[in-house]
Amino acid sequence: MSYSSKRIEQAVHEISKLPGIGQKTALRLALHLLKQPEDQSLSLADAVVKLRTQTIYCQKCHNISDTEICGICSNPKRQENILCVVEDVRDVMALENTGNYNGLYHVLGGLISPLDGIGPSELNIATLVKKVAEDSIDEVILALNTTMEGDTTNFYIFRKLKDSTVKITTIARGIAVGDELEFADEVTLGRSISQRIPYEQSIPSK
Amino acid sequence: MSYSSKRIEQAVHEISKLPGIGQKTALRLALHLLKQPEDQSLSLADAVVKLRTQTIYCQKCHNISDTEICGICSNPKRQENILCVVEDVRDVMALENTGNYNGLYHVLGGLISPLDGIGPSELNIATLVKKVAEDSIDEVILALNTTMEGDTTNFYIFRKLKDSTVKITTIARGIAVGDELEFADEVTLGRSISQRIPYEQSIPSK
Repeated sequence: MSYSSKRIEQAVHEISKLPGIGQKTALRLALHLLKQPEDQSLSLADAVVKLRTQTIYCQKCHNISDTEICGICSNPKRQENILCVVEDVRDVMALENTGNYNGLYHVLGGLISPLDGIGPSELNIATLVKKVAEDSIDEVILALNTTMEGDTTNFYIFRKLKDSTVKITTIARGIAVGDELEFADEVTLGRSISQRIPYEQSIPSK
Repeated sequence: MSYSSKRIEQAVHEISKLPGIGQKTALRLALHLLKQPEDQSLSLADAVVKLRTQTIYCQKCHNISDTEICGICSNPKRQENILCVVEDVRDVMALENTGNYNGLYHVLGGLISPLDGIGPSELNIATLVKKVAEDSIDEVILALNTTMEGDTTNFYIFRKLKDSTVKITTIARGIAVGDELEFADEVTLGRSISQRIPYEQSIPSK
Protein backbone atom coordinates (compact mmCIF):
# COMPACT_ATOMS: atom_id res chain seq x y z
CA MET A 1 0.00 0.00 0.00
CA SER A 2 1.16 3.52 -0.70
CA TYR A 3 0.52 6.10 2.00
CA SER A 4 0.22 9.80 1.35
CA SER A 5 2.12 10.65 4.53
CA LYS A 6 5.25 9.21 6.13
CA ARG A 7 3.78 9.85 9.58
CA ILE A 8 0.78 7.65 8.88
CA GLU A 9 2.95 5.02 7.20
CA GLN A 10 5.20 4.88 10.26
CA ALA A 11 2.22 4.70 12.65
CA VAL A 12 0.57 1.92 10.62
CA HIS A 13 3.91 0.07 10.50
CA GLU A 14 4.28 0.21 14.30
CA ILE A 15 0.64 -0.54 15.13
CA SER A 16 0.50 -3.52 12.75
CA LYS A 17 3.36 -5.15 14.69
CA LEU A 18 0.93 -5.78 17.55
CA PRO A 19 -0.45 -9.32 17.72
CA GLY A 20 -3.71 -9.84 15.82
CA ILE A 21 -3.61 -6.43 14.13
CA GLY A 22 -3.07 -6.35 10.37
CA GLN A 23 -2.39 -3.46 7.99
CA LYS A 24 -6.05 -2.55 7.47
CA THR A 25 -6.93 -2.51 11.17
CA ALA A 26 -3.75 -0.56 11.88
CA LEU A 27 -4.77 2.07 9.32
CA ARG A 28 -8.25 2.27 10.83
CA LEU A 29 -6.72 2.76 14.31
CA ALA A 30 -4.24 5.35 13.00
CA LEU A 31 -7.05 7.34 11.37
CA HIS A 32 -9.00 7.13 14.63
CA LEU A 33 -5.98 8.49 16.52
CA LEU A 34 -5.83 11.35 14.02
CA LYS A 35 -9.52 12.19 14.33
CA GLN A 36 -9.96 12.12 18.10
CA PRO A 37 -8.86 15.01 20.36
CA GLU A 38 -5.09 15.37 20.50
CA ASP A 39 -4.75 14.86 24.26
CA GLN A 40 -6.41 11.43 24.02
CA SER A 41 -3.89 10.19 21.45
CA LEU A 42 -1.01 11.65 23.41
CA SER A 43 -2.18 10.06 26.66
CA LEU A 44 -2.24 6.68 24.89
CA ALA A 45 1.38 7.20 23.84
CA ASP A 46 2.25 8.35 27.34
CA ALA A 47 0.61 5.27 28.91
CA VAL A 48 2.65 3.00 26.61
CA VAL A 49 5.91 4.76 27.53
CA LYS A 50 5.13 4.62 31.26
CA LEU A 51 4.04 0.99 31.00
CA ARG A 52 7.35 0.05 29.41
CA THR A 53 9.72 2.19 31.45
CA GLN A 54 8.14 2.25 34.90
CA THR A 55 6.56 -1.18 35.35
CA ILE A 56 8.53 -3.48 37.62
CA TYR A 57 8.03 -7.08 38.65
CA CYS A 58 7.37 -8.21 42.23
CA GLN A 59 10.57 -9.70 43.64
CA LYS A 60 8.64 -12.44 45.40
CA CYS A 61 6.00 -13.65 42.93
CA HIS A 62 7.24 -12.01 39.65
CA ASN A 63 3.82 -10.49 39.05
CA ILE A 64 3.62 -7.09 37.36
CA SER A 65 3.71 -4.46 40.07
CA ASP A 66 4.31 -0.79 40.82
CA THR A 67 6.31 -1.64 43.95
CA GLU A 68 9.18 -4.04 44.69
CA ILE A 69 6.82 -6.35 46.59
CA CYS A 70 3.33 -6.49 45.07
CA GLY A 71 0.05 -5.85 46.88
CA ILE A 72 -0.76 -9.55 47.15
CA CYS A 73 2.62 -10.64 48.53
CA SER A 74 2.68 -7.78 51.06
CA ASN A 75 -0.89 -8.41 52.26
CA PRO A 76 -0.62 -9.93 55.81
CA LYS A 77 -4.10 -11.47 55.49
CA ARG A 78 -3.06 -13.87 52.71
CA GLN A 79 -2.00 -17.44 53.51
CA GLU A 80 1.75 -17.57 52.99
CA ASN A 81 1.99 -21.35 52.94
CA ILE A 82 0.07 -21.86 49.69
CA LEU A 83 1.52 -20.98 46.28
CA CYS A 84 -0.48 -20.96 43.07
CA VAL A 85 1.72 -21.35 39.97
CA VAL A 86 0.34 -19.46 36.95
CA GLU A 87 1.56 -18.51 33.49
CA ASP A 88 1.14 -14.73 33.59
CA VAL A 89 -0.62 -11.76 35.16
CA ARG A 90 -3.89 -12.47 33.31
CA ASP A 91 -4.28 -15.71 35.25
CA VAL A 92 -3.59 -13.89 38.54
CA MET A 93 -6.33 -11.40 37.65
CA ALA A 94 -8.77 -14.16 36.67
CA LEU A 95 -8.19 -16.03 39.94
CA GLU A 96 -8.35 -12.83 42.02
CA ASN A 97 -11.70 -12.01 40.42
CA THR A 98 -13.18 -15.27 41.73
CA GLY A 99 -12.54 -14.19 45.32
CA ASN A 100 -12.05 -17.88 46.14
CA TYR A 101 -8.29 -17.93 46.63
CA ASN A 102 -6.44 -16.45 49.57
CA GLY A 103 -2.91 -17.77 49.10
CA LEU A 104 0.04 -16.32 47.22
CA TYR A 105 1.02 -16.63 43.56
CA HIS A 106 4.10 -17.54 41.61
CA VAL A 107 4.10 -16.14 38.06
CA LEU A 108 6.22 -18.17 35.63
CA GLY A 109 6.19 -15.55 32.89
CA GLY A 110 5.42 -18.11 30.18
CA LEU A 111 5.43 -21.84 29.52
CA ILE A 112 8.15 -24.25 28.41
CA SER A 113 7.95 -24.27 24.62
CA PRO A 114 10.96 -25.71 22.77
CA LEU A 115 9.47 -24.66 19.41
CA ASP A 116 9.55 -21.01 20.49
CA GLY A 117 12.98 -21.44 22.08
CA ILE A 118 11.61 -21.08 25.62
CA GLY A 119 13.29 -23.48 28.04
CA PRO A 120 12.96 -23.77 31.84
CA SER A 121 15.80 -21.29 32.35
CA GLU A 122 13.80 -18.54 30.61
CA LEU A 123 10.99 -18.93 33.16
CA ASN A 124 10.80 -18.19 36.89
CA ILE A 125 11.14 -21.86 37.84
CA ALA A 126 14.44 -21.73 39.76
CA THR A 127 13.02 -19.17 42.18
CA LEU A 128 9.96 -21.39 42.69
CA VAL A 129 12.15 -24.38 43.62
CA LYS A 130 14.20 -22.16 45.95
CA LYS A 131 11.06 -20.79 47.58
CA VAL A 132 9.70 -24.29 48.21
CA ALA A 133 13.05 -25.40 49.67
CA GLU A 134 13.62 -22.36 51.91
CA ASP A 135 10.19 -20.96 52.85
CA SER A 136 7.53 -22.88 54.72
CA ILE A 137 5.32 -23.73 51.76
CA ASP A 138 2.76 -26.49 52.38
CA GLU A 139 1.05 -26.64 49.01
CA VAL A 140 1.88 -25.76 45.41
CA ILE A 141 -1.18 -25.49 43.14
CA LEU A 142 -0.38 -25.93 39.45
CA ALA A 143 -2.84 -23.73 37.54
CA LEU A 144 -1.48 -23.76 33.99
CA ASN A 145 -3.56 -24.12 30.85
CA THR A 146 -3.97 -27.68 29.52
CA THR A 147 -2.01 -27.13 26.33
CA MET A 148 1.01 -29.20 25.35
CA GLU A 149 3.23 -26.42 26.73
CA GLY A 150 1.20 -26.23 29.94
CA ASP A 151 1.35 -29.98 30.49
CA THR A 152 5.10 -30.04 29.81
CA THR A 153 5.69 -27.21 32.28
CA ASN A 154 3.45 -28.87 34.88
CA PHE A 155 5.42 -32.09 34.58
CA TYR A 156 8.78 -30.31 34.70
CA ILE A 157 7.81 -28.47 37.91
CA PHE A 158 6.36 -31.66 39.37
CA ARG A 159 9.66 -33.50 38.82
CA LYS A 160 11.67 -30.62 40.30
CA LEU A 161 9.51 -30.55 43.44
CA LYS A 162 8.66 -34.19 43.99
CA ASP A 163 11.58 -34.85 46.36
CA SER A 164 10.43 -32.11 48.72
CA THR A 165 7.64 -32.65 51.21
CA VAL A 166 5.36 -30.06 49.60
CA LYS A 167 1.88 -31.14 48.52
CA ILE A 168 1.44 -30.64 44.78
CA THR A 169 -2.11 -30.13 43.50
CA THR A 170 -3.70 -28.96 40.27
CA ILE A 171 -6.94 -27.08 39.66
CA ALA A 172 -10.07 -29.17 38.99
CA ARG A 173 -11.05 -29.82 35.37
CA GLY A 174 -14.63 -30.67 34.50
CA ILE A 175 -17.85 -29.42 32.98
CA ALA A 176 -18.18 -25.65 33.44
CA VAL A 177 -20.91 -24.54 35.82
CA GLY A 178 -24.08 -24.00 33.73
CA ASP A 179 -22.86 -26.08 30.77
CA GLU A 180 -24.87 -29.02 29.51
CA LEU A 181 -23.42 -32.53 29.62
CA GLU A 182 -24.49 -33.47 26.11
CA PHE A 183 -22.43 -30.69 24.54
CA ALA A 184 -19.28 -31.24 26.61
CA ASP A 185 -16.22 -32.73 24.92
CA GLU A 186 -15.36 -36.33 25.78
CA VAL A 187 -12.07 -35.63 27.54
CA THR A 188 -13.62 -33.07 29.89
CA LEU A 189 -16.69 -35.19 30.61
CA GLY A 190 -14.46 -38.25 31.14
CA ARG A 191 -12.30 -36.35 33.63
CA SER A 192 -15.31 -34.94 35.45
CA ILE A 193 -16.75 -38.44 36.03
CA SER A 194 -13.48 -40.12 36.98
CA GLN A 195 -12.52 -37.25 39.32
CA ARG A 196 -15.94 -36.96 40.94
CA ILE A 197 -16.13 -35.49 44.45
CA PRO A 198 -18.43 -36.05 47.45
CA TYR A 199 -21.69 -34.14 46.95
CA GLU A 200 -21.30 -32.20 50.22
CA GLN A 201 -18.11 -30.58 48.85
CA SER A 202 -19.96 -29.18 45.83
CA ILE A 203 -22.26 -27.03 47.97
CA PRO A 204 -20.88 -23.47 48.22
CA SER A 205 -19.94 -22.88 51.85
CA LYS A 206 -20.77 -19.17 51.77
CA MET B 1 -11.16 -6.09 36.77
CA SER B 2 -8.50 -5.43 39.36
CA TYR B 3 -4.99 -4.87 38.06
CA SER B 4 -1.85 -5.46 40.09
CA SER B 5 -0.19 -2.36 38.65
CA LYS B 6 -1.44 1.16 37.99
CA ARG B 7 0.79 1.36 34.92
CA ILE B 8 -0.91 -1.62 33.30
CA GLU B 9 -4.34 -0.40 34.37
CA GLN B 10 -3.66 2.96 32.73
CA ALA B 11 -2.32 1.33 29.56
CA VAL B 12 -5.32 -1.01 29.30
CA HIS B 13 -7.66 1.93 29.89
CA GLU B 14 -6.09 3.93 27.07
CA ILE B 15 -5.75 1.04 24.61
CA SER B 16 -9.36 -0.10 25.15
CA LYS B 17 -10.58 3.33 24.02
CA LEU B 18 -9.55 2.40 20.47
CA PRO B 19 -12.43 1.25 18.24
CA GLY B 20 -13.02 -2.50 18.25
CA ILE B 21 -10.64 -3.17 21.14
CA GLY B 22 -12.15 -4.34 24.42
CA GLN B 23 -10.64 -4.78 27.88
CA LYS B 24 -9.35 -8.30 27.25
CA THR B 25 -7.66 -7.48 23.94
CA ALA B 26 -6.24 -4.31 25.47
CA LEU B 27 -4.70 -6.35 28.29
CA ARG B 28 -3.25 -8.82 25.79
CA LEU B 29 -1.72 -5.94 23.81
CA ALA B 30 -0.39 -4.30 26.98
CA LEU B 31 1.29 -7.55 28.05
CA HIS B 32 2.76 -7.87 24.56
CA LEU B 33 4.16 -4.34 24.84
CA LEU B 34 5.70 -5.33 28.17
CA LYS B 35 7.27 -8.52 26.83
CA GLN B 36 8.79 -7.26 23.58
CA PRO B 37 12.08 -5.30 23.46
CA GLU B 38 11.75 -1.86 25.02
CA ASP B 39 12.73 0.09 21.89
CA GLN B 40 9.86 -1.47 19.93
CA SER B 41 7.25 -0.33 22.45
CA LEU B 42 8.80 3.11 22.65
CA SER B 43 8.89 3.50 18.87
CA LEU B 44 5.15 2.69 18.79
CA ALA B 45 4.51 5.47 21.30
CA ASP B 46 6.80 7.78 19.32
CA ALA B 47 4.95 7.03 16.06
CA VAL B 48 1.62 7.86 17.72
CA VAL B 49 2.94 11.18 19.05
CA LYS B 50 4.46 12.13 15.67
CA LEU B 51 1.28 11.05 13.87
CA ARG B 52 -0.81 13.33 16.05
CA THR B 53 1.46 16.33 16.29
CA GLN B 54 3.21 16.43 12.90
CA THR B 55 0.59 15.25 10.40
CA ILE B 56 -0.93 18.03 8.34
CA TYR B 57 -3.67 18.07 5.73
CA CYS B 58 -3.09 19.06 2.11
CA GLN B 59 -4.43 22.58 1.60
CA LYS B 60 -5.84 21.67 -1.80
CA CYS B 61 -7.43 18.22 -1.41
CA HIS B 62 -7.52 17.86 2.43
CA ASN B 63 -5.76 14.51 2.22
CA ILE B 64 -3.35 13.54 5.01
CA SER B 65 0.08 14.77 4.02
CA ASP B 66 3.56 15.62 5.28
CA THR B 67 3.69 18.79 3.20
CA GLU B 68 1.29 21.71 2.68
CA ILE B 69 0.44 20.47 -0.80
CA CYS B 70 0.33 16.67 -1.03
CA GLY B 71 2.25 14.53 -3.52
CA ILE B 72 -0.81 13.95 -5.69
CA CYS B 73 -1.85 17.63 -5.94
CA SER B 74 1.71 18.74 -6.67
CA ASN B 75 2.29 16.08 -9.35
CA PRO B 76 2.34 17.89 -12.74
CA LYS B 77 1.45 14.65 -14.55
CA ARG B 78 -2.02 14.42 -12.98
CA GLN B 79 -5.07 15.77 -14.79
CA GLU B 80 -6.08 18.90 -12.91
CA ASN B 81 -9.55 19.16 -14.47
CA ILE B 82 -10.96 16.00 -12.86
CA LEU B 83 -11.81 15.79 -9.14
CA CYS B 84 -12.73 12.57 -7.37
CA VAL B 85 -14.73 13.18 -4.16
CA VAL B 86 -14.02 10.58 -1.46
CA GLU B 87 -14.79 10.13 2.23
CA ASP B 88 -11.29 9.75 3.65
CA VAL B 89 -7.66 8.83 3.00
CA ARG B 90 -8.45 5.10 2.86
CA ASP B 91 -10.49 5.64 -0.28
CA VAL B 92 -7.66 7.67 -1.84
CA MET B 93 -5.29 4.79 -1.12
CA ALA B 94 -7.71 2.22 -2.55
CA LEU B 95 -8.16 4.22 -5.75
CA GLU B 96 -4.43 4.93 -6.07
CA ASN B 97 -3.73 1.20 -5.75
CA THR B 98 -5.86 0.50 -8.84
CA GLY B 99 -3.53 2.66 -10.99
CA ASN B 100 -6.61 3.53 -13.11
CA TYR B 101 -7.14 7.12 -12.01
CA ASN B 102 -4.96 10.04 -12.97
CA GLY B 103 -6.99 13.02 -11.77
CA LEU B 104 -6.99 14.81 -8.42
CA TYR B 105 -8.92 14.07 -5.22
CA HIS B 106 -11.09 15.98 -2.82
CA VAL B 107 -11.27 14.39 0.64
CA LEU B 108 -14.48 15.25 2.52
CA GLY B 109 -13.23 13.97 5.89
CA GLY B 110 -16.48 12.14 6.60
CA LEU B 111 -20.10 11.91 5.48
CA ILE B 112 -23.20 13.89 6.39
CA SER B 113 -24.72 12.05 9.35
CA PRO B 114 -27.31 13.95 11.40
CA LEU B 115 -27.45 11.11 13.95
CA ASP B 116 -23.76 11.61 14.74
CA GLY B 117 -24.13 15.38 14.65
CA ILE B 118 -22.13 15.73 11.43
CA GLY B 119 -23.59 18.34 9.11
CA PRO B 120 -22.27 19.71 5.79
CA SER B 121 -20.35 22.45 7.62
CA GLU B 122 -18.22 19.84 9.44
CA LEU B 123 -17.03 18.47 6.09
CA ASN B 124 -14.83 19.93 3.36
CA ILE B 125 -17.79 20.70 1.08
CA ALA B 126 -17.51 24.52 0.94
CA THR B 127 -13.96 24.26 -0.44
CA LEU B 128 -15.19 21.78 -3.06
CA VAL B 129 -17.89 24.20 -4.24
CA LYS B 130 -15.32 27.04 -4.30
CA LYS B 131 -12.85 24.89 -6.25
CA VAL B 132 -15.49 24.04 -8.86
CA ALA B 133 -16.51 27.69 -9.17
CA GLU B 134 -12.99 29.13 -9.40
CA ASP B 135 -10.74 26.46 -10.91
CA SER B 136 -11.19 24.94 -14.34
CA ILE B 137 -12.75 21.67 -13.22
CA ASP B 138 -14.51 19.72 -15.98
CA GLU B 139 -15.71 16.67 -14.05
CA VAL B 140 -16.52 15.81 -10.43
CA ILE B 141 -16.63 12.08 -9.73
CA LEU B 142 -18.66 11.16 -6.64
CA ALA B 143 -17.03 8.07 -5.12
CA LEU B 144 -18.74 7.72 -1.73
CA ASN B 145 -19.96 4.47 -0.22
CA THR B 146 -23.60 3.57 -0.91
CA THR B 147 -24.77 3.90 2.67
CA MET B 148 -27.56 6.22 3.76
CA GLU B 149 -24.92 8.77 4.79
CA GLY B 150 -23.09 8.38 1.48
CA ASP B 151 -26.26 8.81 -0.57
CA THR B 152 -27.26 11.86 1.47
CA THR B 153 -23.83 13.43 0.98
CA ASN B 154 -23.86 12.62 -2.74
CA PHE B 155 -27.24 14.30 -3.14
CA TYR B 156 -26.20 17.34 -1.09
CA ILE B 157 -23.08 17.84 -3.21
CA PHE B 158 -25.07 17.25 -6.41
CA ARG B 159 -27.55 20.01 -5.46
CA LYS B 160 -24.72 22.40 -4.55
CA LEU B 161 -23.00 21.84 -7.90
CA LYS B 162 -25.90 21.39 -10.31
CA ASP B 163 -26.05 25.08 -11.31
CA SER B 164 -22.42 25.03 -12.44
CA THR B 165 -21.39 23.67 -15.81
CA VAL B 166 -19.30 20.87 -14.29
CA LYS B 167 -20.05 17.28 -15.32
CA ILE B 168 -21.04 15.23 -12.26
CA THR B 169 -20.47 11.48 -12.45
CA THR B 170 -20.44 8.61 -9.99
CA ILE B 171 -18.41 5.40 -9.96
CA ALA B 172 -19.97 2.33 -11.62
CA ARG B 173 -21.87 -0.13 -9.42
CA GLY B 174 -22.34 -3.68 -10.56
CA ILE B 175 -21.28 -7.27 -10.10
CA ALA B 176 -17.66 -7.44 -8.91
CA VAL B 177 -15.20 -8.86 -11.44
CA GLY B 178 -15.00 -12.60 -10.81
CA ASP B 179 -18.28 -12.81 -8.88
CA GLU B 180 -21.06 -15.12 -9.99
CA LEU B 181 -24.42 -13.70 -11.06
CA GLU B 182 -26.52 -16.19 -9.12
CA PHE B 183 -25.04 -15.08 -5.77
CA ALA B 184 -25.27 -11.33 -6.41
CA ASP B 185 -27.84 -9.30 -4.48
CA GLU B 186 -30.86 -8.09 -6.46
CA VAL B 187 -30.10 -4.37 -6.23
CA THR B 188 -26.58 -4.77 -7.56
CA LEU B 189 -27.63 -7.18 -10.33
CA GLY B 190 -30.55 -4.88 -11.23
CA ARG B 191 -28.20 -1.89 -11.50
CA SER B 192 -25.68 -3.81 -13.53
CA ILE B 193 -28.29 -4.77 -16.15
CA SER B 194 -29.99 -1.38 -16.34
CA GLN B 195 -26.65 0.45 -16.54
CA ARG B 196 -25.12 -1.91 -19.09
CA ILE B 197 -22.32 -0.57 -21.30
CA PRO B 198 -21.20 -1.29 -24.90
CA TYR B 199 -19.12 -4.49 -24.96
CA GLU B 200 -16.12 -2.74 -26.55
CA GLN B 201 -15.80 -0.52 -23.47
CA SER B 202 -15.45 -3.53 -21.17
CA ILE B 203 -12.26 -4.73 -22.84
CA PRO B 204 -9.19 -3.44 -20.94
CA SER B 205 -7.39 -1.03 -23.25
CA LYS B 206 -3.92 -1.93 -21.92
